[in-house]
Amino acid sequence: MIVNPALAATRPSPVVEAKRWIADKTFAPDLPLLNVSQAAPVDPPPVPLREAMAETALTLPAAHVYGPVLGLPALREEVAAQFSTAYGGTITPGNVAITQGCNQAFCAAVATLAGPGDEVILPTPWYFNHQMWLTLSGVTPVALPAGEEMLPTVAEAEARLTDRTRAIVLVTPNNPAGVEYPADLVHAFANLARRAGIALIVDETYRDFDSRPGAPHDLFTAPDWSDTVIQLYSFSKAYRLTGHRVGAMVASPERLLAAEKFLDTVAICPNQLGQHAALWGMQNLGRWLAGERDEILARRAAVEDGVIALPGWEIAGAGAYFAYVRHPFDESSASLARRMVDDIAVLALPGTMFTPDDDPAGAAHLRIAFANIDRDGIATLMERLARLS
Amino acid sequence: MIVNPALAATRPSPVVEAKRWIADKTFAPDLPLLNVSQAAPVDPPPVPLREAMAETALTLPAAHVYGPVLGLPALREEVAAQFSTAYGGTITPGNVAITQGCNQAFCAAVATLAGPGDEVILPTPWYFNHQMWLTLSGVTPVALPAGEEMLPTVAEAEARLTDRTRAIVLVTPNNPAGVEYPADLVHAFANLARRAGIALIVDETYRDFDSRPGAPHDLFTAPDWSDTVIQLYSFSKAYRLTGHRVGAMVASPERLLAAEKFLDTVAICPNQLGQHAALWGMQNLGRWLAGERDEILARRAAVEDGVIALPGWEIAGAGAYFAYVRHPFDESSASLARRMVDDIAVLALPGTMFTPDDDPAGAAHLRIAFANIDRDGIATLMERLARLS
Repeated sequence: MIVNPALAATRPSPVVEAKRWIADKTFAPDLPLLNVSQAAPVDPPPVPLREAMAETALTLPAAHVYGPVLGLPALREEVAAQFSTAYGGTITPGNVAITQGCNQAFCAAVATLAGPGDEVILPTPWYFNHQMWLTLSGVTPVALPAGEEMLPTVAEAEARLTDRTRAIVLVTPNNPAGVEYPADLVHAFANLARRAGIALIVDETYRDFDSRPGAPHDLFTAPDWSDTVIQLYSFSKAYRLTGHRVGAMVASPERLLAAEKFLDTVAICPNQLGQHAALWGMQNLGRWLAGERDEILARRAAVEDGVIALPGWEIAGAGAYFAYVRHPFDESSASLARRMVDDIAVLALPGTMFTPDDDPAGAAHLRIAFANIDRDGIATLMERLARLS
Repeated sequence: MIVNPALAATRPSPVVEAKRWIADKTFAPDLPLLNVSQAAPVDPPPVPLREAMAETALTLPAAHVYGPVLGLPALREEVAAQFSTAYGGTITPGNVAITQGCNQAFCAAVATLAGPGDEVILPTPWYFNHQMWLTLSGVTPVALPAGEEMLPTVAEAEARLTDRTRAIVLVTPNNPAGVEYPADLVHAFANLARRAGIALIVDETYRDFDSRPGAPHDLFTAPDWSDTVIQLYSFSKAYRLTGHRVGAMVASPERLLAAEKFLDTVAICPNQLGQHAALWGMQNLGRWLAGERDEILARRAAVEDGVIALPGWEIAGAGAYFAYVRHPFDESSASLARRMVDDIAVLALPGTMFTPDDDPAGAAHLRIAFANIDRDGIATLMERLARLS
């Protein structure tokens, strides 16, 4: 079979691979599977949002036909207004594009910036879909190990700059490590990118679950932010719209015009009904979302307490939907994660899925996507991890 | 601004560009805009389908959360079953992937086959989004002029094969030329692809509006079809689901496994509610779709009659949603199309948008997407074209 070599060189999706681990397994009734592998709400959106979607499907013809490539104007306006307030900066509707999910926003951003032979700096552990997209685009992902604190440093990033570097990518709150990057650090990275004449891509998929009050960074307060900054956002997590695939890319109008070529070929337009749902969510679910955040932060605290109490286990980072934990076994997480399915019916992704092959840090870690399980589930998870030997 | 050179080399989307031609225009009340530029139903899906979508949004939690990367199993099964019957061949659910629209199916198919420096043969006039995706992927689109009959020949394709050729693309019924490729021709292209060890991508977005009874080709009757053939399909046209972005790719399970890497990064999964809508449409709207086809075929006949009656105008091809017409002016279609907006308030795409810069054939043609207008609209279109001087 003819295969594009860049695609052949791309790892399979970890989430898909992990699903295959459990596809043919049966689990005992007294030991059902506990799935902490994928970062996703398992419940549907709240009933009023579902009712709004049903009403839109019935009554709004425009929700069924093509819309603008860069998204629903009203949604672009809402994002611009709310983000301007949230970040204390100036974001116009012309700075906002809507995409078929935040993964696609990343693909579009990279497509505007880099081609084969170019380089993009990714802190590790990385979000695997970022690494996959770069690899299959022929762009070299340059690993920037985040170290013990799970925070990359500007100096180490600077040391990795070459004349082929096109962007640095930050994910904050981080997937998989959970850490919330300090505003100062994000600011310093933007300065580095500006000096180097490259882009800073800031993936804020989990911004609505950041534990800190106020703006998580000040990038948008710079009048010329759009020369450097590309922000990515997802409506999936905030409003439980994962199945509708709606994300956003915030950048200069010129970059969005370039992205439009990519998005026209890959998408034509984002799903219209999902965009209306995201808009309704932004306009009506602010208080509900605050409650969701409280619940996620409570789960995070429960996971942190639980892991700390486990002999030999350590928390490397926690936040967003994730705890990134160090396991106590003299074994790679790659085999440990497989064994956990068999021994304790827990599906978690090994750190090796978030790191380059030559990075030993991955073998020591596991990512636990705790947003999927309630506090009873977290207690059960800790009991099972305690049994693991 | 840093820009990926392959993206910079990619033409802007013609549909987007044409929208910009009219963005700042006002049209007189007695001469409203007649838009025959985009191939899309302008009406929403029939009420029962909208009711089914509303019901699904309200009652099916799974319609709101992530699903499998390659699509809803029930929809893959339905496509497999209906297509096996329609084509008299064997298509299994494992041969079917669902995508965020048929454009994305093309992107995924190419991503599995070809990388920078490789070549893909496209008959011209081509569907511009195909050419755009190849160019921005660094793949060279090799033009195969379809000639006066608007049908490419196998001999001319064979003459263009090199050791970098990875695929030949056929669109039938054709966009923009409308022609329905004879089954023998499609068969002969598959044989050529098989001999050359490359893929034949057959885009059948408009198959539901083919004027011929029975199967439009016999490719799926070959037991080893999936070694060579990749079929693309869209649910958008048949069930008026353009705004929901649901398409399909039919290929070998091995190729779909490769495509899964691309689709995981670009999409994660297709929009779930849209997939349920497509499934409902396939299961319940067969008779309605037959009526839609009758209407499209009647419009096609009206457009053909109308153009033939216009002095100096000729039909180059008609079918699917399109008439591809030769205009009588000593002027490139590129400027004529702009002038038509001003002089007769008609927006149609020039042939130059469907051909390479060095191909003079494009200048002589216009594409009229007649599916957008009813028979009164077609009569009005002909009156206006007759006034053009």
